[in-house]
Amino acid sequence: MGGAITFPLAANGLSVRLWGTWLDEELISECRRGPHPRLGTALPPEVELFGSDQLEEALAGAELLFLAVSSEGFVPVLERLLASPGLPPGLPLFCLTKGFVAREGRILRTGEGGAELYGSSFPGLPLRWASIGGPVKAAELARRVPTASVYALGDPSLEPLLAFFRTPYYRVLASYDLVGVELCAALKNAYAILLGICDGLFPGPGAGPVDNLKALLLSRAVDELAGIVEAGGGRASTACGPAGIGDLYVTAQSGRNRLLGERIGAGERPAQAYALMRSSGQLAEGYLAVRHGPSFLAGLDAAPAGGRELLDALYRILFGGAECRAELERLAGGYG
Amino acid sequence: MGGAITFPLAANGLSVRLWGTWLDEELISECRRGPHPRLGTALPPEVELFGSDQLEEALAGAELLFLAVSSEGFVPVLERLLASPGLPPGLPLFCLTKGFVAREGRILRTGEGGAELYGSSFPGLPLRWASIGGPVKAAELARRVPTASVYALGDPSLEPLLAFFRTPYYRVLASYDLVGVELCAALKNAYAILLGICDGLFPGPGAGPVDNLKALLLSRAVDELAGIVEAGGGRASTACGPAGIGDLYVTAQSGRNRLLGERIGAGERPAQAYALMRSSGQLAEGYLAVRHGPSFLAGLDAAPAGGRELLDALYRILFGGAECRAELERLAGGYG
Repeated sequence: MGGAITFPLAANGLSVRLWGTWLDEELISECRRGPHPRLGTALPPEVELFGSDQLEEALAGAELLFLAVSSEGFVPVLERLLASPGLPPGLPLFCLTKGFVAREGRILRTGEGGAELYGSSFPGLPLRWASIGGPVKAAELARRVPTASVYALGDPSLEPLLAFFRTPYYRVLASYDLVGVELCAALKNAYAILLGICDGLFPGPGAGPVDNLKALLLSRAVDELAGIVEAGGGRASTACGPAGIGDLYVTAQSGRNRLLGERIGAGERPAQAYALMRSSGQLAEGYLAVRHGPSFLAGLDAAPAGGRELLDALYRILFGGAECRAELERLAGGYG
Repeated sequence: MGGAITFPLAANGLSVRLWGTWLDEELISECRRGPHPRLGTALPPEVELFGSDQLEEALAGAELLFLAVSSEGFVPVLERLLASPGLPPGLPLFCLTKGFVAREGRILRTGEGGAELYGSSFPGLPLRWASIGGPVKAAELARRVPTASVYALGDPSLEPLLAFFRTPYYRVLASYDLVGVELCAALKNAYAILLGICDGLFPGPGAGPVDNLKALLLSRAVDELAGIVEAGGGRASTACGPAGIGDLYVTAQSGRNRLLGERIGAGERPAQAYALMRSSGQLAEGYLAVRHGPSFLAGLDAAPAGGRELLDALYRILFGGAECRAELERLAGGYG
């Protein structure tokens, strides 16, 4: 997504610099030689590329940051950013990282254990924060398929900057429900694993898809998500909009989280499937959302109105050795 | 679906009779010889088959009717049913027909022109009415994929009968929002055409899906549907549940309405694509929902809170010669 967002930014005449972390050396070199390996298309020629040891050069004079690292890489990258001498205070940070942050390390706020959302975890951060929700598959944005994203603004002064992202094919919808958009972005990955499990559980030639089951679980997931967003202090309507339903749909159609679910549904052990995918560069963020989600929920004042049955079932499957078919059949029977 | 529902009914030990209309002679003969041609599997051996001239025999002693004819065949079939001498008053009718009924013919209620929903169109009907919503693909139900449906009961006395349908793989969810379930069942077909148009508009080898656009329109469709349900006197929450989001998801994954949209998106003229599909036995009900939907909306006291932009765009595309790409780009930009 870091590569894909350069298309609308460059189209708007901005001077765009793409910095790769220490895990992206290979990717940055490939972009120097030809098409972006994950987008399948070359980046706009105006984009300048920076290796991981060139963070200071990339940051010099920056007026806006767009951060698209995985949740595992987020804290180390943020620490490097904050340690950069040239970082101007109040720099806008548009953050695409999804998920929960476990309370650990020096930049996170109070408490032992537990989990927080990114946007609300760094109260003293000298940056103006926005969190970006879906529904976006990066390769489609790079292909200029009509696309929309929800940009949740932690600070109203960021709203005029949205004009830098907007193009005729990329609509940027402003939201002030930071908690809601962050929860949707994190949890839709978890629910996409659940929908992937459906695909894996009913395999075999001629068996075809199991859309009935997936449709039922999709509607249950939106319901549960809306309740969790509300319990977290966000707006239930965010879960029923593009950042909720829309992003869950895109994520469940294809991608790493759905694939992880399919492998687990087909019988692979969850920890092993996750580790194997991760070691081949396919980090399924939903796995972490399921691990940290219960800690986040435990820290809320209110229980979600729609319950948390789906997340709890996922937790049992991924971390408790529970059997997929029994869990899914219970969920399919438990609606309403 | 008429064939698929015989699986749970027979599993519950009911004596099941499957009657085919005058359009189903071929289908009934095929079922006598082997697998149901559309389900790909043989019906349960307990099911008795009846040709179109055997309605009276099929009805004799019936305690429950399940009607699964297309919206075009609905009124003629209902007229034949009502003319049957042996029809006991108050017989339960579980109706799967989706869509709007144009006000015409002798059994429909007041008024010239306009359109009504089935369940509310026959106030003097000597039957106890229930309307069935999704999300169900019939072939998956016949394969015993875990499936749920929403049964909207026009009469609370029908609720105990739901036990005849329920099996471990088929969950039947009771609802009393007859209007909401009927509107979802009708309009999800229309919105599935819109999502199909996305597939047709961006074709070509290597182009891949356009899930970003479809996800955005899916979330807009749920929003619009919820507003229309509410304006029609139903509950917005029905649109956000399995009969709404869930059924729209299933319908947009595959099937006739999505295919009609894809053909139109790829450049075929709407009336021609519809007629060609219909003549090969593929009736895309959403086409009729788009035609009659505006008349239904015009008869409501209130305008839908979320507007009707998607339906209006569909109407312009299907019946007004409007260009797909311009309409879709306008819809993609118009959110929120």
